[in-house]
Amino acid sequence: MVIKVHGSLFTACTSRVLACLHEMELDYEIVPIDFSSQAHKQQPYLSLNPFGQAPALEDDNITLFESRAITRYLARKYKDTGTDLLRLNNLTEAAIVETWMEVESHHYDGPISTIVRQILINPYFGRVSDEKIIQIEVEKLVKVLDVYEERLSKFKYLAGDHFSMADLHHIAYTVLFMKTPKSNLITSRPHLNAWWNDISSRPKLIKVVNGLMFRDLGSLNILSKK
Amino acid sequence: MVIKVHGSLFTACTSRVLACLHEMELDYEIVPIDFSSQAHKQQPYLSLNPFGQAPALEDDNITLFESRAITRYLARKYKDTGTDLLRLNNLTEAAIVETWMEVESHHYDGPISTIVRQILINPYFGRVSDEKIIQIEVEKLVKVLDVYEERLSKFKYLAGDHFSMADLHHIAYTVLFMKTPKSNLITSRPHLNAWWNDISSRPKLIKVVNGLMFRDLGSLNILSKK
Repeated sequence: MVIKVHGSLFTACTSRVLACLHEMELDYEIVPIDFSSQAHKQQPYLSLNPFGQAPALEDDNITLFESRAITRYLARKYKDTGTDLLRLNNLTEAAIVETWMEVESHHYDGPISTIVRQILINPYFGRVSDEKIIQIEVEKLVKVLDVYEERLSKFKYLAGDHFSMADLHHIAYTVLFMKTPKSNLITSRPHLNAWWNDISSRPKLIKVVNGLMFRDLGSLNILSKK
Repeated sequence: MVIKVHGSLFTACTSRVLACLHEMELDYEIVPIDFSSQAHKQQPYLSLNPFGQAPALEDDNITLFESRAITRYLARKYKDTGTDLLRLNNLTEAAIVETWMEVESHHYDGPISTIVRQILINPYFGRVSDEKIIQIEVEKLVKVLDVYEERLSKFKYLAGDHFSMADLHHIAYTVLFMKTPKSNLITSRPHLNAWWNDISSRPKLIKVVNGLMFRDLGSLNILSKK
């Protein structure tokens, strides 16, 4: 059966999975979630993802949730297809990819997703943005980006001189972040900026990147992320 | 060379790596970090971990940081030793382990580490605990624990009926959390409580669990975690 992704192009975590599918040149279909009726908080969706968030994946007899677990699964199962994102044939390279995937999870995702939520998402839903939260998270992000700038002054990509899952996992929220007035935090750092221009213009990924542009968040009953 | 872990028994993330080493029956030595002199924020430590946090790992010619990347590396490199924590020989089982490892990272770690910091760590350092933050994080944690309780009513462990890395990654912060007045959030849920009693009393892990007891946090110039 064809791979099914339950979610929406407009949620960052769904787009993380779609970026992986595109980069690996895998066919898939999206099963849209009706967020407006809160379908993601009810059965049968909760049997796919008990946390009631997008995305969830169906592939053959397996159902999975958590975007980063899904991308790891896809890269393992279809390891001979498309880009080698996890470098599984080389223990050292694989470990370095995993390290920078964990950096994304535990250093980058928290501040950048909060900033995006505060600056872009809250106003969209008529909620007030909290300037103090934005300031705190920007301070955290600056420290992380300084480490990235140093890293990217030595290597073209985060895990070395090859594009990997570590880079790919950053794309979803960074696309949205670049639509905020804080985007200069990236553009002002030359190596980071070059890295972002490179990974966001990869031909295989351009459709996913464009699908995430905030101007397209038209039918915004869509965002599942908290 | 023997595996070297730079860190301290008293930091949760170091203990996550030590739990993995004990469960896998691997020899290692701890290279203590002198947190009191801020050694973790200076060279040469920053060349091991550019974020200046514990732990970092040295093994043969590789240095790694991020506790969850280190455990994945150890489980892959020494896959024929000790407990099979990642189920790498079965694609489906491995994917389910990864899913619940991601749940720990993205649902459990945030609230539980914040609660531990607010209730245990802040007073230790003479800092004020923020009751509002505790309340918000407890509300988040309750929702997560409800999902866990449901999951553990069907399976003995998070990824199925076998102990895995998904369970192991929870131990470090849960040991500390159980020393707080909020521990009833776990003990009041029968399946969750049975799971916790099981995994925290595993013979291979008992030294690490005891090392994390808060009463032992004697020389507390030690905590690296933010």
